[in-house]
Amino acid sequence: MVMDDEVPGAVGTSASFALRFGQTIFSAASLLFMSLGVEFHNYTAFCFLVTIMGLVIPWSITLALTDIYSVLIRCPIRHPGILLFIVFGDWALSFLTLAAASSIAGIVDVLQRADETFCAAGLCSRYQISAGLAFLSWFLSMASSLSNLWFLSSLTR
Amino acid sequence: MVMDDEVPGAVGTSASFALRFGQTIFSAASLLFMSLGVEFHNYTAFCFLVTIMGLVIPWSITLALTDIYSVLIRCPIRHPGILLFIVFGDWALSFLTLAAASSIAGIVDVLQRADETFCAAGLCSRYQISAGLAFLSWFLSMASSLSNLWFLSSLTR
Repeated sequence: MVMDDEVPGAVGTSASFALRFGQTIFSAASLLFMSLGVEFHNYTAFCFLVTIMGLVIPWSITLALTDIYSVLIRCPIRHPGILLFIVFGDWALSFLTLAAASSIAGIVDVLQRADETFCAAGLCSRYQISAGLAFLSWFLSMASSLSNLWFLSSLTR
Repeated sequence: MVMDDEVPGAVGTSASFALRFGQTIFSAASLLFMSLGVEFHNYTAFCFLVTIMGLVIPWSITLALTDIYSVLIRCPIRHPGILLFIVFGDWALSFLTLAAASSIAGIVDVLQRADETFCAAGLCSRYQISAGLAFLSWFLSMASSLSNLWFLSSLTR
């Protein structure tokens, strides 16, 4: 059921569920590439990425479940307060994700030049893949946030 | 003159001029701290910050002049195409600014640990101040982008 004023990607639609599913997958993959068998706690930025991904994953799963529920009962959320909370949460998490991914990308570039032995055993490519997955997660979070902001703006008028 | 549907911070208002003025000041200060007398071209992220700041400064100055002109002739821009271009430009530049600032912040942290002599002569604090100013510039760009997006959303309905 598509309503006239429904915004694709706003909370309670199947597009929103697809975005949340993508965020969960990319965040979990980024976390795994960063943390499994690697001493990620050597640098602040690596710990930062792991922390942020640990926040993004439960946030995205919760909202994905909300989307499934809303689609099944065919009743999207239209409460401006809840929407504002979701927009703000997505907004904050997407910026933190982008900041963490950029830090990792910059640091890997510096460490590759400073220390030839650092990139032994494919560590650098693992870090780079992790940063790339975090960038994808950021992009989907941003899309969710903008969709919900547009929907919120259409509700309050 | 305040119109009923005017959004504070949207293009053509005095609040928007204040935001643009702040962006210009912070970007120029960040560029100066990064580039004056420092060999910033050693690392990719440092060159990236300088490049982005070189884009943000003319963009902000142009829009600040547009705002002054709109305030003086009391006729804010209401063309959705132009607004969409401004929203997209602000959005892209603010993300690039955030990415550059985060990379610098991460790199300075790593270089401080890796090389004790690197932070001689106050270089690290200069890089950190530059990253901090870039963060402030990002915040103001984001505020401009969100205000204009809200205004655009109110126009298209």
